Amino acid sequence: MASPRGVLIWGIHPILETLRHHPELVLEIITQDRLPSPKQQKIADLAKELGLPLHHQPQLPLPPGEQNLNHQGIVARLRGFPAYELPDLLSGDDRGTPTLVALDSIQDPHNLGAIIRSAAAAGAYGVIIPKDRSAPLEGTAAKVAAGTMNLVRICLVTNLVDALLELKEAGYWIFGAEGASGTSIYQTDLSGKVCLVIGSEGKGLRPLVRKQCDFLISIPMSAQVESLNASVAAGVMLFEIARQKSPAQQIIPKKS
Amino acid sequence: MASPRGVLIWGIHPILETLRHHPELVLEIITQDRLPSPKQQKIADLAKELGLPLHHQPQLPLPPGEQNLNHQGIVARLRGFPAYELPDLLSGDDRGTPTLVALDSIQDPHNLGAIIRSAAAAGAYGVIIPKDRSAPLEGTAAKVAAGTMNLVRICLVTNLVDALLELKEAGYWIFGAEGASGTSIYQTDLSGKVCLVIGSEGKGLRPLVRKQCDFLISIPMSAQVESLNASVAAGVMLFEIARQKSPAQQIIPKKS
Repeated sequence: MASPRGVLIWGIHPILETLRHHPELVLEIITQDRLPSPKQQKIADLAKELGLPLHHQPQLPLPPGEQNLNHQGIVARLRGFPAYELPDLLSGDDRGTPTLVALDSIQDPHNLGAIIRSAAAAGAYGVIIPKDRSAPLEGTAAKVAAGTMNLVRICLVTNLVDALLELKEAGYWIFGAEGASGTSIYQTDLSGKVCLVIGSEGKGLRPLVRKQCDFLISIPMSAQVESLNASVAAGVMLFEIARQKSPAQQIIPKKS
Repeated sequence: MASPRGVLIWGIHPILETLRHHPELVLEIITQDRLPSPKQQKIADLAKELGLPLHHQPQLPLPPGEQNLNHQGIVARLRGFPAYELPDLLSGDDRGTPTLVALDSIQDPHNLGAIIRSAAAAGAYGVIIPKDRSAPLEGTAAKVAAGTMNLVRICLVTNLVDALLELKEAGYWIFGAEGASGTSIYQTDLSGKVCLVIGSEGKGLRPLVRKQCDFLISIPMSAQVESLNASVAAGVMLFEIARQKSPAQQIIPKKS
C-alpha cells in the first residue's frame, strides 16, 4: 500500500487512533498552525512522547482536488496501513464465530471508509480487499473510516476468488450480497463463521465471485427501489449478522 | 426549494424517475452529445412525448466545483422538488402504521441522498427536512438518492421541534437516534406509528430536538467505535423498523 511518499491521512480522530495503535507506521505529523488547538496539542504531545517528527506547514500536503476535505488542520504521513496477509488473518480467527467482509471492487472511497467503520462497529473480525480492485485505502476513505482502520484487521489479497476458496476450506460460509433476488437476510442463518461479500456500486458481484458464494442474500425492500447505497447495504447486513450472533440483542416479543 | 435558475439534477436514473412521476416540475433537459446513448435516447423520447424542451450543450450547466460528478452526459433543470407541507403529509397517512424519518441538520449531501434512498427502500412514508438546516436537496443528494426522491414524500418544515409536536398529536412515537447511550433498537418496540429522528453528522441531535423524543435508541456496537456514518445508522434503524413491522421478515429460529 505504501507509495514512495507514503500514505496521507488527516483529521484528529484517524491520526490519534493510528498513533495509539500503530505508531510504527507514522513517518511524520504536520500541523497547519503554529498555535495548536487542544486536540491538535494532544496529538503533538503523543508524537513527542513517541519521538516522531512534528512539523508546521501553512499549506498542508493534501491530495490534488481534495482542498475542501475536513482535515481539521492536521495531516499524518504513514509508511502504509497495517495490513494482514490472508494466512495470518485466518491463523488468528480461532475465537468463536468470526465475521469477515470481502469487498469486490468498491470504487467510491466514501463507501470504502464507511464499510470499514461499520465492520469495526459491528464487531467484524476483518475486511478483505483485493489489492487492484478497490478505491485507495487513504485520504477520504481513512477520514470516513474515522480511525476505525486500526480496529478491524485489513487484509489485502491479490485474487478475491482464490481468497474465497481458502476461506471455504477454513470453514467459512460465503454470503454474497445481492440487490434484490437473494434470500432475505432475515430468513437466513448468519450465525456461523460468515464471510459477507459486497459487490461494486454499479455492477454488483462479478460473475466469478458470485459463483464462489454459498448463498446469495438480500435486504427485503420496496419493489420500486433497485438497490441501496453500497455502504448502507453492507451496514444493514453486518448488523443483522451481529444481531443473530448476539442472543442479548434479540428483539423483545411484539405486543400484538 | 426553487431558485430563479431552478434546481439541477443529473444522471439517467434520477431524470427518468422525475419525468415519470413529476413531469410538471421539469423545465428542460440538456444532453452533452448530439448523438445520444440508448439510455439518453429513452429520456429524449419521453421528453418529446411530454412536450418538454430538449437541448444539446457540450458544456453541461453543472454546479461549481462539481466537474467530476457522474452526470452520464445528461442534466435536467427542475422548477423545484415535489415537497409536502406537514398537514398534507399527515392527512394522507391513514393506512396502517407509517414510518417517518426526520433529519435534524444533515449537512453532507451524500448522507442526505443515501438516507432518502434508504427511506424509500425501507418503505417509509415520508422524510421530514428542516428548510434551513439541511444540505440542499439537489445535485449530489439527488444523484445519490438515485431517483428515489420521487418514491418517498419529502416534507419541508420551518421548525423541526414544532413539527415533532404536531407528529405527537397525530399519534406518532418520536424515536431519537443516539450514538451509543440509547436503548438497543433490538429491545425497543418500533412497530407502531414511528418517527425516527437522525441528528447531524458531527453533533448528533440538538438539545431542543432531543427533548421532544419519546425514546432515545441506539444500534448496539463495539465499545471502541464512537459512531456510525449517519446514513449507515439511519439505514440500519430504518430496516430494523421495517423488519419489526413485517411479520414475514421475522428471523427463522436459531439452530442452537
